[in-house]
Amino acid sequence: MNKIEHIGIAVKDLENSNSLFASLFGKKHYKIEAVESENVLTSFFKCGPNKIELLQATTEDSPIAKFIEKKGEGIHHIAFAVDDIESEIERLTNEGFRMIHEKPKKGADNKLIAFLHPKSTNGVLIELCQDIQH
Amino acid sequence: MNKIEHIGIAVKDLENSNSLFASLFGKKHYKIEAVESENVLTSFFKCGPNKIELLQATTEDSPIAKFIEKKGEGIHHIAFAVDDIESEIERLTNEGFRMIHEKPKKGADNKLIAFLHPKSTNGVLIELCQDIQH
Repeated sequence: MNKIEHIGIAVKDLENSNSLFASLFGKKHYKIEAVESENVLTSFFKCGPNKIELLQATTEDSPIAKFIEKKGEGIHHIAFAVDDIESEIERLTNEGFRMIHEKPKKGADNKLIAFLHPKSTNGVLIELCQDIQH
Repeated sequence: MNKIEHIGIAVKDLENSNSLFASLFGKKHYKIEAVESENVLTSFFKCGPNKIELLQATTEDSPIAKFIEKKGEGIHHIAFAVDDIESEIERLTNEGFRMIHEKPKKGADNKLIAFLHPKSTNGVLIELCQDIQH
Protein backbone atom coordinates (compact mmCIF):
# COMPACT_ATOMS: atom_id res chain seq x y z
CA MET A 1 0.00 0.00 0.00
CA ASN A 2 1.60 3.22 -1.23
CA LYS A 3 -0.35 5.94 0.59
CA ILE A 4 -3.81 6.97 1.78
CA GLU A 5 -5.45 7.68 -1.58
CA HIS A 6 -8.52 9.25 0.01
CA ILE A 7 -10.82 9.36 3.01
CA GLY A 8 -14.52 8.93 2.25
CA ILE A 9 -16.91 11.05 4.34
CA ALA A 10 -20.67 10.39 4.39
CA VAL A 11 -22.70 13.61 4.21
CA LYS A 12 -26.41 14.37 4.06
CA ASP A 13 -26.28 17.42 1.80
CA LEU A 14 -23.40 17.59 -0.68
CA GLU A 15 -23.95 21.26 -1.50
CA ASN A 16 -23.68 22.33 2.15
CA SER A 17 -20.70 20.05 2.76
CA ASN A 18 -18.88 21.26 -0.36
CA SER A 19 -19.11 24.74 1.03
CA LEU A 20 -18.01 23.61 4.51
CA PHE A 21 -14.97 21.68 3.25
CA ALA A 22 -14.03 24.52 0.88
CA SER A 23 -13.80 26.76 3.98
CA LEU A 24 -11.78 24.09 5.77
CA PHE A 25 -9.23 23.59 2.99
CA GLY A 26 -9.28 27.15 1.67
CA LYS A 27 -10.10 25.83 -1.82
CA LYS A 28 -13.04 24.32 -3.71
CA HIS A 29 -13.72 20.70 -4.70
CA TYR A 30 -12.15 19.85 -8.06
CA LYS A 31 -14.83 17.52 -9.34
CA ILE A 32 -18.26 16.00 -8.78
CA GLU A 33 -18.98 12.50 -10.02
CA ALA A 34 -22.01 10.22 -9.76
CA VAL A 35 -21.29 6.52 -9.07
CA GLU A 36 -24.52 4.93 -10.22
CA SER A 37 -23.62 1.38 -9.15
CA GLU A 38 -23.39 2.62 -5.52
CA ASN A 39 -26.20 5.19 -5.69
CA VAL A 40 -23.92 7.99 -4.54
CA LEU A 41 -22.93 11.43 -5.66
CA THR A 42 -19.28 12.17 -4.84
CA SER A 43 -17.19 15.30 -4.61
CA PHE A 44 -13.38 15.43 -4.38
CA PHE A 45 -10.96 17.79 -2.65
CA LYS A 46 -7.16 17.61 -2.98
CA CYS A 47 -4.95 17.82 0.09
CA GLY A 48 -1.33 17.40 -1.02
CA PRO A 49 -0.80 13.74 -2.01
CA ASN A 50 -4.23 12.79 -0.59
CA LYS A 51 -7.88 13.42 -1.36
CA ILE A 52 -11.12 13.79 0.56
CA GLU A 53 -14.19 12.24 -1.07
CA LEU A 54 -17.57 13.48 0.14
CA LEU A 55 -20.38 10.96 -0.42
CA GLN A 56 -24.09 11.76 -0.60
CA ALA A 57 -26.72 9.04 -1.11
CA THR A 58 -28.91 9.41 -4.18
CA THR A 59 -31.44 6.73 -3.14
CA GLU A 60 -32.84 5.58 0.20
CA ASP A 61 -31.22 2.15 -0.14
CA SER A 62 -27.76 3.54 -0.96
CA PRO A 63 -25.02 2.19 1.36
CA ILE A 64 -24.36 5.81 2.37
CA ALA A 65 -28.00 6.38 3.38
CA LYS A 66 -27.85 3.24 5.54
CA PHE A 67 -24.52 4.31 7.08
CA ILE A 68 -25.87 7.76 8.04
CA GLU A 69 -29.06 6.21 9.45
CA LYS A 70 -26.98 3.94 11.69
CA LYS A 71 -23.98 6.10 12.63
CA GLY A 72 -24.72 9.66 11.50
CA GLU A 73 -22.62 11.78 9.19
CA GLY A 74 -18.87 11.25 9.38
CA ILE A 75 -15.88 9.24 8.18
CA HIS A 76 -17.06 6.28 6.12
CA HIS A 77 -13.90 4.61 4.78
CA ILE A 78 -10.14 4.84 4.17
CA ALA A 79 -8.85 4.06 0.69
CA PHE A 80 -5.25 2.96 0.15
CA ALA A 81 -3.51 3.26 -3.22
CA VAL A 82 -2.03 0.00 -4.50
CA ASP A 83 -0.06 -0.78 -7.67
CA ASP A 84 -1.67 -4.14 -8.42
CA ILE A 85 -5.09 -4.62 -6.86
CA GLU A 86 -5.48 -8.28 -7.86
CA SER A 87 -2.24 -9.36 -6.20
CA GLU A 88 -3.08 -7.25 -3.12
CA ILE A 89 -6.51 -8.95 -2.83
CA GLU A 90 -4.75 -12.31 -3.05
CA ARG A 91 -2.15 -11.34 -0.43
CA LEU A 92 -4.77 -10.04 2.01
CA THR A 93 -7.05 -13.06 1.53
CA ASN A 94 -4.07 -15.31 2.31
CA GLU A 95 -3.43 -13.19 5.44
CA GLY A 96 -6.99 -14.04 6.59
CA PHE A 97 -8.80 -10.78 5.71
CA ARG A 98 -12.36 -10.99 4.37
CA MET A 99 -13.00 -9.13 1.12
CA ILE A 100 -16.40 -7.60 0.30
CA HIS A 101 -15.26 -7.65 -3.35
CA GLU A 102 -13.10 -10.64 -4.28
CA LYS A 103 -12.74 -9.20 -7.77
CA PRO A 104 -11.98 -5.50 -8.39
CA LYS A 105 -14.79 -3.33 -9.74
CA LYS A 106 -14.93 0.12 -11.36
CA GLY A 107 -15.18 2.93 -8.79
CA ALA A 108 -15.21 6.74 -8.87
CA ASP A 109 -12.24 8.81 -10.07
CA ASN A 110 -11.04 6.32 -12.71
CA LYS A 111 -10.07 3.56 -10.27
CA LEU A 112 -10.40 -0.17 -9.87
CA ILE A 113 -11.56 -0.74 -6.30
CA ALA A 114 -12.26 -3.49 -3.77
CA PHE A 115 -13.43 -3.20 -0.17
CA LEU A 116 -12.34 -5.29 2.81
CA HIS A 117 -15.01 -6.36 5.28
CA PRO A 118 -14.80 -4.14 8.41
CA LYS A 119 -15.43 -7.18 10.65
CA SER A 120 -11.92 -8.33 9.76
CA THR A 121 -10.27 -4.90 10.18
CA ASN A 122 -11.20 -3.57 13.65
CA GLY A 123 -14.41 -1.93 12.43
CA VAL A 124 -12.58 0.14 9.79
CA LEU A 125 -14.01 0.02 6.27
CA ILE A 126 -10.95 -0.19 3.99
CA GLU A 127 -10.88 0.26 0.22
CA LEU A 128 -8.04 -0.70 -2.07
CA CYS A 129 -7.75 1.34 -5.23
CA GLN A 130 -5.60 1.17 -8.33
CA ASP A 131 -5.47 3.69 -11.17
CA ILE A 132 -6.98 2.40 -14.40
CA GLN A 133 -4.29 2.51 -17.08
CA HIS A 134 -5.09 4.02 -20.49
CA MET B 1 -3.26 21.97 5.06
CA ASN B 2 -0.42 20.06 3.41
CA LYS B 3 -1.55 16.44 3.58
CA ILE B 4 -3.29 13.86 5.75
CA GLU B 5 -0.67 13.45 8.47
CA HIS B 6 -2.41 10.44 10.01
CA ILE B 7 -5.71 8.67 10.61
CA GLY B 8 -6.45 7.81 14.25
CA ILE B 9 -8.19 4.46 14.83
CA ALA B 10 -9.73 3.54 18.20
CA VAL B 11 -8.96 -0.05 19.20
CA LYS B 12 -9.74 -2.16 22.27
CA ASP B 13 -6.56 -4.22 22.37
CA LEU B 14 -3.41 -2.60 20.96
CA GLU B 15 -1.44 -5.84 20.86
CA ASN B 16 -4.07 -7.63 18.74
CA SER B 17 -4.51 -4.60 16.50
CA ASN B 18 -0.77 -4.15 16.01
CA SER B 19 -0.65 -7.68 14.69
CA LEU B 20 -3.74 -7.12 12.48
CA PHE B 21 -2.42 -3.90 10.93
CA ALA B 22 1.04 -5.44 10.45
CA SER B 23 -0.65 -8.12 8.31
CA LEU B 24 -2.59 -5.42 6.46
CA PHE B 25 0.44 -3.27 5.64
CA GLY B 26 2.96 -6.09 5.35
CA LYS B 27 5.15 -4.35 7.95
CA LYS B 28 5.24 -3.70 11.69
CA HIS B 29 4.42 -0.52 13.63
CA TYR B 30 7.49 1.71 14.02
CA LYS B 31 6.78 3.05 17.49
CA ILE B 32 4.59 2.88 20.56
CA GLU B 33 4.03 6.01 22.62
CA ALA B 34 1.91 6.77 25.69
CA VAL B 35 0.09 10.14 25.71
CA GLU B 36 -0.61 10.56 29.39
CA SER B 37 -2.64 13.78 29.05
CA GLU B 38 -5.19 11.86 26.92
CA ASN B 39 -4.92 8.52 28.76
CA VAL B 40 -4.07 6.66 25.58
CA LEU B 41 -1.41 4.29 24.35
CA THR B 42 -0.64 4.86 20.66
CA SER B 43 1.08 2.86 17.97
CA PHE B 44 2.19 4.19 14.57
CA PHE B 45 2.44 2.61 11.10
CA LYS B 46 3.90 4.36 8.05
CA CYS B 47 2.07 4.26 4.73
CA GLY B 48 4.04 6.34 2.21
CA PRO B 49 3.63 10.04 3.15
CA ASN B 50 0.90 9.17 5.68
CA LYS B 51 0.60 7.36 9.01
CA ILE B 52 -1.97 5.27 10.83
CA GLU B 53 -2.18 5.85 14.59
CA LEU B 54 -3.84 3.10 16.64
CA LEU B 55 -5.26 4.37 19.95
CA GLN B 56 -6.02 2.26 23.00
CA ALA B 57 -7.51 3.74 26.18
CA THR B 58 -5.44 3.34 29.34
CA THR B 59 -8.23 4.44 31.73
CA GLU B 60 -12.02 4.04 31.74
CA ASP B 61 -12.55 7.81 31.38
CA SER B 62 -10.17 8.15 28.41
CA PRO B 63 -11.79 9.84 25.37
CA ILE B 64 -11.00 6.64 23.43
CA ALA B 65 -12.85 4.45 25.96
CA LYS B 66 -15.88 6.74 25.66
CA PHE B 67 -15.70 6.70 21.85
CA ILE B 68 -15.59 2.87 21.70
CA GLU B 69 -18.46 2.62 24.21
CA LYS B 70 -20.61 4.88 22.00
CA LYS B 71 -19.57 3.91 18.46
CA GLY B 72 -17.44 0.77 18.68
CA GLU B 73 -13.91 0.33 17.38
CA GLY B 74 -13.09 2.22 14.20
CA ILE B 75 -11.86 5.47 12.68
CA HIS B 76 -11.64 8.14 15.37
CA HIS B 77 -10.12 11.21 13.68
CA ILE B 78 -8.26 12.64 10.67
CA ALA B 79 -5.15 14.72 11.31
CA PHE B 80 -3.95 17.26 8.74
CA ALA B 81 -0.36 18.53 8.67
CA VAL B 82 -0.07 22.31 8.81
CA ASP B 83 2.99 24.59 8.72
CA ASP B 84 1.78 27.11 11.29
CA ILE B 85 -0.88 25.79 13.65
CA GLU B 86 -1.58 29.13 15.37
CA SER B 87 -2.37 30.94 12.12
CA GLU B 88 -4.46 27.95 10.93
CA ILE B 89 -6.50 28.04 14.18
CA GLU B 90 -7.06 31.75 13.62
CA ARG B 91 -8.08 31.26 9.97
CA LEU B 92 -10.52 28.43 10.82
CA THR B 93 -12.04 30.33 13.75
CA ASN B 94 -12.61 33.29 11.41
CA GLU B 95 -14.27 30.88 8.93
CA GLY B 96 -16.76 29.93 11.68
CA PHE B 97 -15.30 26.57 12.80
CA ARG B 98 -15.40 25.70 16.50
CA MET B 99 -12.09 24.63 18.03
CA ILE B 100 -11.91 22.14 20.93
CA HIS B 101 -8.42 23.56 21.58
CA GLU B 102 -8.09 27.28 20.91
CA LYS B 103 -4.40 27.04 21.78
CA PRO B 104 -2.16 24.24 20.47
CA LYS B 105 -1.06 21.56 22.93
CA LYS B 106 1.63 18.87 22.91
CA GLY B 107 0.45 15.63 21.26
CA ALA B 108 2.01 12.29 20.34
CA ASP B 109 4.82 11.92 17.79
CA ASN B 110 6.51 15.26 18.57
CA LYS B 111 3.65 17.46 17.35
CA LEU B 112 1.74 20.53 18.41
CA ILE B 113 -1.93 19.67 17.97
CA ALA B 114 -5.42 21.18 18.14
CA PHE B 115 -8.79 19.54 17.47
CA LEU B 116 -11.81 21.07 15.74
CA HIS B 117 -15.23 20.33 17.20
CA PRO B 118 -16.99 17.64 15.07
CA LYS B 119 -20.30 19.52 15.37
CA SER B 120 -18.85 22.15 13.05
CA THR B 121 -17.31 19.66 10.58
CA ASN B 122 -20.06 17.23 9.49
CA GLY B 123 -19.42 14.85 12.38
CA VAL B 124 -15.74 14.42 11.46
CA LEU B 125 -13.23 14.84 14.29
CA ILE B 126 -10.36 16.81 12.72
CA GLU B 127 -6.92 17.40 14.23
CA LEU B 128 -4.40 19.95 13.07
CA CYS B 129 -0.78 19.06 13.70
CA GLN B 130 2.50 20.84 13.28
CA ASP B 131 5.98 19.40 13.78
CA ILE B 132 7.75 20.76 16.85
CA GLN B 133 11.00 22.41 15.74
CA HIS B 134 14.23 21.61 17.52
